[in-house]
Amino acid sequence: MSQKTLADLNVCSKDDFVAALSNIFEYSPWIAEQAASARPFAGVKALFAAMKAAVDRGAPELRLALIKAHPDLANKTQRAAGLTAESNDEQNSVGFDRLSDAEYEAFERVNNAYRAKFGFPYIVSVRRHTKDSILRDFERRLPNDAKTETRKSIEEICRIAALRLDLLVVGDDRLQVHGRLSTHVLDTHSGRPAAGIAVELVELSELGSSRVVTRTITNADGRTDKPLIGGRPVPIGRYELTFSVGKYFTERQVPMSDPPFLDKIPLRFSVSDPEGHLHVPLLVTPWSYATYRGS
Amino acid sequence: MSQKTLADLNVCSKDDFVAALSNIFEYSPWIAEQAASARPFAGVKALFAAMKAAVDRGAPELRLALIKAHPDLANKTQRAAGLTAESNDEQNSVGFDRLSDAEYEAFERVNNAYRAKFGFPYIVSVRRHTKDSILRDFERRLPNDAKTETRKSIEEICRIAALRLDLLVVGDDRLQVHGRLSTHVLDTHSGRPAAGIAVELVELSELGSSRVVTRTITNADGRTDKPLIGGRPVPIGRYELTFSVGKYFTERQVPMSDPPFLDKIPLRFSVSDPEGHLHVPLLVTPWSYATYRGS
Amino acid sequence: MSQKTLADLNVCSKDDFVAALSNIFEYSPWIAEQAASARPFAGVKALFAAMKAAVDRGAPELRLALIKAHPDLANKTQRAAGLTAESNDEQNSVGFDRLSDAEYEAFERVNNAYRAKFGFPYIVSVRRHTKDSILRDFERRLPNDAKTETRKSIEEICRIAALRLDLLVVGDDRLQVHGRLSTHVLDTHSGRPAAGIAVELVELSELGSSRVVTRTITNADGRTDKPLIGGRPVPIGRYELTFSVGKYFTERQVPMSDPPFLDKIPLRFSVSDPEGHLHVPLLVTPWSYATYRGS
Amino acid sequence: MSQKTLADLNVCSKDDFVAALSNIFEYSPWIAEQAASARPFAGVKALFAAMKAAVDRGAPELRLALIKAHPDLANKTQRAAGLTAESNDEQNSVGFDRLSDAEYEAFERVNNAYRAKFGFPYIVSVRRHTKDSILRDFERRLPNDAKTETRKSIEEICRIAALRLDLLVVGDDRLQVHGRLSTHVLDTHSGRPAAGIAVELVELSELGSSRVVTRTITNADGRTDKPLIGGRPVPIGRYELTFSVGKYFTERQVPMSDPPFLDKIPLRFSVSDPEGHLHVPLLVTPWSYATYRGS
Repeated sequence: MSQKTLADLNVCSKDDFVAALSNIFEYSPWIAEQAASARPFAGVKALFAAMKAAVDRGAPELRLALIKAHPDLANKTQRAAGLTAESNDEQNSVGFDRLSDAEYEAFERVNNAYRAKFGFPYIVSVRRHTKDSILRDFERRLPNDAKTETRKSIEEICRIAALRLDLLVVGDDRLQVHGRLSTHVLDTHSGRPAAGIAVELVELSELGSSRVVTRTITNADGRTDKPLIGGRPVPIGRYELTFSVGKYFTERQVPMSDPPFLDKIPLRFSVSDPEGHLHVPLLVTPWSYATYRGS
Repeated sequence: MSQKTLADLNVCSKDDFVAALSNIFEYSPWIAEQAASARPFAGVKALFAAMKAAVDRGAPELRLALIKAHPDLANKTQRAAGLTAESNDEQNSVGFDRLSDAEYEAFERVNNAYRAKFGFPYIVSVRRHTKDSILRDFERRLPNDAKTETRKSIEEICRIAALRLDLLVVGDDRLQVHGRLSTHVLDTHSGRPAAGIAVELVELSELGSSRVVTRTITNADGRTDKPLIGGRPVPIGRYELTFSVGKYFTERQVPMSDPPFLDKIPLRFSVSDPEGHLHVPLLVTPWSYATYRGS
Repeated sequence: MSQKTLADLNVCSKDDFVAALSNIFEYSPWIAEQAASARPFAGVKALFAAMKAAVDRGAPELRLALIKAHPDLANKTQRAAGLTAESNDEQNSVGFDRLSDAEYEAFERVNNAYRAKFGFPYIVSVRRHTKDSILRDFERRLPNDAKTETRKSIEEICRIAALRLDLLVVGDDRLQVHGRLSTHVLDTHSGRPAAGIAVELVELSELGSSRVVTRTITNADGRTDKPLIGGRPVPIGRYELTFSVGKYFTERQVPMSDPPFLDKIPLRFSVSDPEGHLHVPLLVTPWSYATYRGS
Repeated sequence: MSQKTLADLNVCSKDDFVAALSNIFEYSPWIAEQAASARPFAGVKALFAAMKAAVDRGAPELRLALIKAHPDLANKTQRAAGLTAESNDEQNSVGFDRLSDAEYEAFERVNNAYRAKFGFPYIVSVRRHTKDSILRDFERRLPNDAKTETRKSIEEICRIAALRLDLLVVGDDRLQVHGRLSTHVLDTHSGRPAAGIAVELVELSELGSSRVVTRTITNADGRTDKPLIGGRPVPIGRYELTFSVGKYFTERQVPMSDPPFLDKIPLRFSVSDPEGHLHVPLLVTPWSYATYRGS
């Protein structure tokens, strides 16, 4: 869907406004309709706040309908029948278009168990998660009562909506829906940033196979030209960053043992705050290294 | 084979001496025969030096016969036909009794290529190696000329003999044929040794599957009661040590993110000196860690 | 002296141009006169290059006169008789207006020995130095021959001129005559930037007394609002940064020993590149710390 | 005083026993007399326990007399008049024989204020303290009531007695009255212990001048041949360890800046547990270092 400017949305007809924002909340144009009357908006945050306020004011039946309008996670039949473009992109982001059979089964069990207990689908903002963290979230939420889960579903729906709105509408301000994962390699053997180090970021999974998120090379400042993850939430989950330091020191003819004591250094860590900035640097010599959660 | 004391070997008949030491050098009792005349020995080192001197003095034909007396690595037919007990134990130590088919093939290629070029088997002291480092050693040695490989084979044979002698003969002194791999976990969050941390040492393999070497728990001093590897050479190769620090800090109710930033910390390193002492400590908080090659 | 814009200097009369720039090179308006004919200048760098070119083209007598136009370092009589405003500010920057008697004597010895050997004053860009590093520089240069010292004097004069020009003339570009010294405190006990840590930077001196350069407090990001040294060269010399971490952890009620193992942490280091960016971070728990030359 | 064996003390006459142990508790032979009847002792710990039990059983008047039998701290008149040899050695250990006038005054104020309030001298086991920590201890104790201070005085007297007994009597076991301060320098630039590093330990003082405790050189293992402090309590107080790493790396021709970024590295820390083992290692490259409280 093509992007809209907030300026245009502030002045267009109500019908155009509702049409543009109809799927910010899945199959629920009534929310955009209510928000329309609060125009003009000073910024995207104000627009989102107005839509969220409409949800919060909504009658229980409407809120339940909003929840039920969402698809099941990773449901093959629903995918075949067609999801909204937004749902489809979101589910693909976490890899639901390429699940193994075992993973499909795991998610189906989740969906079915949840739907059987609550009568509505299990909803989670998948762009903020990895497959593993979704299953973990599910396991924590399944024991809840219906009231708690209604509230949590609305919370997740608002997170989904905020991300959709951020993609769709361009204004002077931005919703704080993105995080950042960055690194920095300091060569403390020579007292310089380590340039030219191959870095690989893998999303680990207990459920299925791990997945390479990005491969890159450190620049002259020992950093990567782009963040390892940026411009989107950093999915909650476990990761492994690998740094090819053996090759780096070999190329600089630093005396080392054979084979080198350190070659590919793995840093294994978890992300817990998708909207935060997580910095994971490496201080390294051929014989030592250190890392820490930086900022 | 039951252990002998150096004192007994110094006073027994020559026949008994030769019988006891006949397989220190594979199927080559002439070496023990020559050494017998140098009795009594002040220590095990002197005994080994006398046997090594016999090898060094040996005529080229004898030295070549010594080389040829060794079995091929990981040869199924030879294993079925029977190896010396010593060869069998050595080959099992590196896992040759449980190779995958792919691994068997890799080693057979090695043996055949080497034998085709030099007319004698590829010999390496397998107790000082992992499967991966054996293949790497082979690839380095295959381009050599016959003279170099004859020398290298004798060197490896002497390393094998030293380890066999160390197992067999008890004296006041010991050959320096053993190394040590140790660790130490310091909890720099509380300023104390980290007790009760689960530690796992895995031998990594590019060739086949990785293999757990040991699992243990740190004691009150943050160390392990026994070295991770000790009382034998530390095989040349790549290893991964994993420390379960998430569980440790959780049990101590240290505030952490959810999921914890650090859970199981992997340290990946290589061993290059089988007879050395390699110390790989971990300094750790819930948000940072460091390691280095210690001593 | 009030600042000039490059635009004005490009269009004003030659007399005004020379008057404005007459003391960029001490008492040597001929340099500005020559540069005037190369107007207009695209930037401050181009202006400086033109003045430097005039020096480089200057006849040996003129260059020697330029050298001799400079005052002695820290000379009381000359100070009483009056220096150029620029020389005065520069000498004060390094503390020459508040030398102890012992220090005066040390510098007088330097001046006299140098002048006795070469017949011209010892010149150094004092804004790039501490008192100690000036004496060290002098000791290295005194054994040189006259030709080398003539060249070195001109180099230093150009450094002085560049700093004067940077102060005086405002253009779109800037000469790279400034460096930066910064710090960052990471609390690896809690995994956060350490806010509210008192930081003190002291310039160490073997010659006389040490001198507090700045005292500040880390902000919410664990950094200081302004660089410890910035907007000027970072003087070559030895420094000590002290971080009051005992107070910080005490206020956060972190369990510690009594007295605390770590209280005021000193980091002692040297600056060697006045125009570079030197970053000296601290990673700290109540029981451990680390630092490194960062970037 | 010459050492005694526990075996001899177990069998000698009661008079000899009492004579030997009469000054374990200052001018209070009644304690040895009571303990004599519990002979023979299985070890030095049992002997000390018996003497301590005698103190604990002592009538209030006797206990008060025991307290009053102690000299004032650092009292010039009493020193001139003569202390027991034990008191004299103890007071010298903390430097009371070489106090500055300001320090004398500080301690006299302490003594006088304390004696004025409680009617007995301020007693502390000076071997467990530095001058600074004694003044700090005094300031904490002065506000106490008489009952608390009577108890604390007896505690300190028993600590003094234990140290005296440990010096005097040789048995198979030892009282745990000694601590240890050690270091270890790891060169993480070359992956080896740092041998030949000059190390200086200074006891810091806010009160008077700081004092060099020991100067030494690291051995081939990067450690010092003897602990920095050992065979006695490690006095509570603030210390600075300085490592001459600039010289070390210069001698190894490691490329460095000029002047070297790191030259003499100070580690400043406090000792809080005189009977514990405090290990303060240094991990160092020319561009980075780390330390931690080890064990």
